[in-house]
Amino acid sequence: MKGVKEDSASNEKESVWRAVTKDDVSLTGDRPTGCLHLGHYVGSLRTRLYLQDRCEQWIMVADQQALTDHLGTSQLSDSVIEVVLDYLSVGLDPTKTTIFLQSAVPQIAELSLYYLNLVSVNRLRHNPTVKQEIRQKNWSESIPAGFLTYPVSQAADITAFQSTLVPVGRDQLPMIEQTNEIVEAFQARYGDGLRRVRALIPPHHGRLPGIDGGQKMSKSLGNGIALSEPPDALRSKVMQMYTDPNHIRVDDPGQVEGNVVFTYLDAFASDSEEVKSLKEHYQRGGLGDVTLKKRLVEVLEGFLSPIRDRRAQWDEGHIYDILRQGSKKAREAAQSTLDQVKKSMHMVVL
Amino acid sequence: MKGVKEDSASNEKESVWRAVTKDDVSLTGDRPTGCLHLGHYVGSLRTRLYLQDRCEQWIMVADQQALTDHLGTSQLSDSVIEVVLDYLSVGLDPTKTTIFLQSAVPQIAELSLYYLNLVSVNRLRHNPTVKQEIRQKNWSESIPAGFLTYPVSQAADITAFQSTLVPVGRDQLPMIEQTNEIVEAFQARYGDGLRRVRALIPPHHGRLPGIDGGQKMSKSLGNGIALSEPPDALRSKVMQMYTDPNHIRVDDPGQVEGNVVFTYLDAFASDSEEVKSLKEHYQRGGLGDVTLKKRLVEVLEGFLSPIRDRRAQWDEGHIYDILRQGSKKAREAAQSTLDQVKKSMHMVVL
Repeated sequence: MKGVKEDSASNEKESVWRAVTKDDVSLTGDRPTGCLHLGHYVGSLRTRLYLQDRCEQWIMVADQQALTDHLGTSQLSDSVIEVVLDYLSVGLDPTKTTIFLQSAVPQIAELSLYYLNLVSVNRLRHNPTVKQEIRQKNWSESIPAGFLTYPVSQAADITAFQSTLVPVGRDQLPMIEQTNEIVEAFQARYGDGLRRVRALIPPHHGRLPGIDGGQKMSKSLGNGIALSEPPDALRSKVMQMYTDPNHIRVDDPGQVEGNVVFTYLDAFASDSEEVKSLKEHYQRGGLGDVTLKKRLVEVLEGFLSPIRDRRAQWDEGHIYDILRQGSKKAREAAQSTLDQVKKSMHMVVL
Repeated sequence: MKGVKEDSASNEKESVWRAVTKDDVSLTGDRPTGCLHLGHYVGSLRTRLYLQDRCEQWIMVADQQALTDHLGTSQLSDSVIEVVLDYLSVGLDPTKTTIFLQSAVPQIAELSLYYLNLVSVNRLRHNPTVKQEIRQKNWSESIPAGFLTYPVSQAADITAFQSTLVPVGRDQLPMIEQTNEIVEAFQARYGDGLRRVRALIPPHHGRLPGIDGGQKMSKSLGNGIALSEPPDALRSKVMQMYTDPNHIRVDDPGQVEGNVVFTYLDAFASDSEEVKSLKEHYQRGGLGDVTLKKRLVEVLEGFLSPIRDRRAQWDEGHIYDILRQGSKKAREAAQSTLDQVKKSMHMVVL
């Protein structure tokens, strides 16, 4: 993508990507709880852009999973449209990548139901991701059953398409482990029908901090820059960005580490020599925050402007068509897995 | 049904049945874990025979629920056929009652998935029926998630057809309570789409003991008499029946209470005067167990012989047709509920 800094070709990076072949099937998805932001781009969307030219790729709008910790509101349906617009605007191409709606593929719910028999309640309670979220939400004993069991639902999402790889951050590895445990339990009890999946941890995978310097860009924290952010709002957000609180006067030497503006420049500026030189100037003093931020606004405009243009090419009717076509293809693929699963379990098929 | 003693018309009975109207919708079902027996007849099938002429009735072969505590084996698919044959053989009529296969109605799995968000893990743990079964199975911490959550699945079975009543024994009342809690949680969060259900406890509802005098006739205990029991096996089972262990010689006075032969005569002999007179004879002495059991064989033959005849009229092809037609009707009804549920939750419908 123009204007986005590509990771330098390291051996580590090469070996990760070399492991992806044309026979691979990738599945990823997003809960439609709001529009996607720069953090989603850095953490996930850019990997998907890479994968769509290298293997079979499925992307799921996880509206059912969104219900596990959000009530259904009119925001849910709006977000479905926004998220697909975000996909298209960054360059995900429905002719290469199948984009579908989870709730339009009932086979996933059926598989989830069968997998619930293959995992113990205790095992689910010990899922590190679930444990952490339960703590964060202060749920303890009132955990909704749908929340405790959502890793089972994820296993259904992944296996429904006979996926071989799921691009994840390290914090999501428990999801892959749980999926493979279910696959193994299925194979041990019933035989064929499912295959193991591997995690693909993208090289230099990192979380983009929020504009407030918080650990994570997050819509709920209001510290994000949306992929659809209008120019004025973008400018205003960059101007609020956390830099170095001790950098009071322009002439003061400033800190680069933990300075969000530099983190964003590292991620989005195409000219790494320029960023290096800006860092040196800032550290020795004489480079003001406002000047620096104006440069970041330009860099991010260079990144977001073509995204906005692409976004404007699609209307709601197109989005529905894409979801309809993708979901039809998804139902067919998932039905084929479900048929095999039911056959292995000796279910009657009418 | 010829040869089966009808319950005497008591006020209690009348008031229970009077509460059933043409607008009612009843749902019941059986896990296909083997063929049905006399205990199923007394406890449930005879109520369904009554209901099929008085309201809309759905009967579900709960093959997915069977998986929650049985592994899928070839026995599962055989049992599906046997259970439907059992329904038809006792007189359930597919032109009056819709007989369908749970796994052929994916809308139920979808509803289950949504309802999982409406009930807490802790609430499920305190379901008395689940607690008792967990104790019996000695599961403690390794409870399969599918077992803990099966009451949610039952709520989906019931609400999918907008059922208004479910005939149950007192021990199954927690199922109705759980369903209504889910309906109320749904209404509170999302509004319309589901309706409450009431329990119908059939008058004189009772469990038929096993031939060994055990509390419950159960296939797994091997103490049952199947509705499809052949004459020789029936005779042999009645001859093994538990009577009064102190009734050694014919002339000894015998006990009637707890004597399984009399319990069965009470349930199945059409002439209650005859049973009364046999009881008196047995109590004063002079009526041998063999003579008494021969009479029970005749009574049960009178009951089972037309059931066997009816059973012989159907072949596997018919059964598949009935299940196919019933499941199609069930999918349509459940889809209409699911559409309303998804609309209330603001889900995108493609």
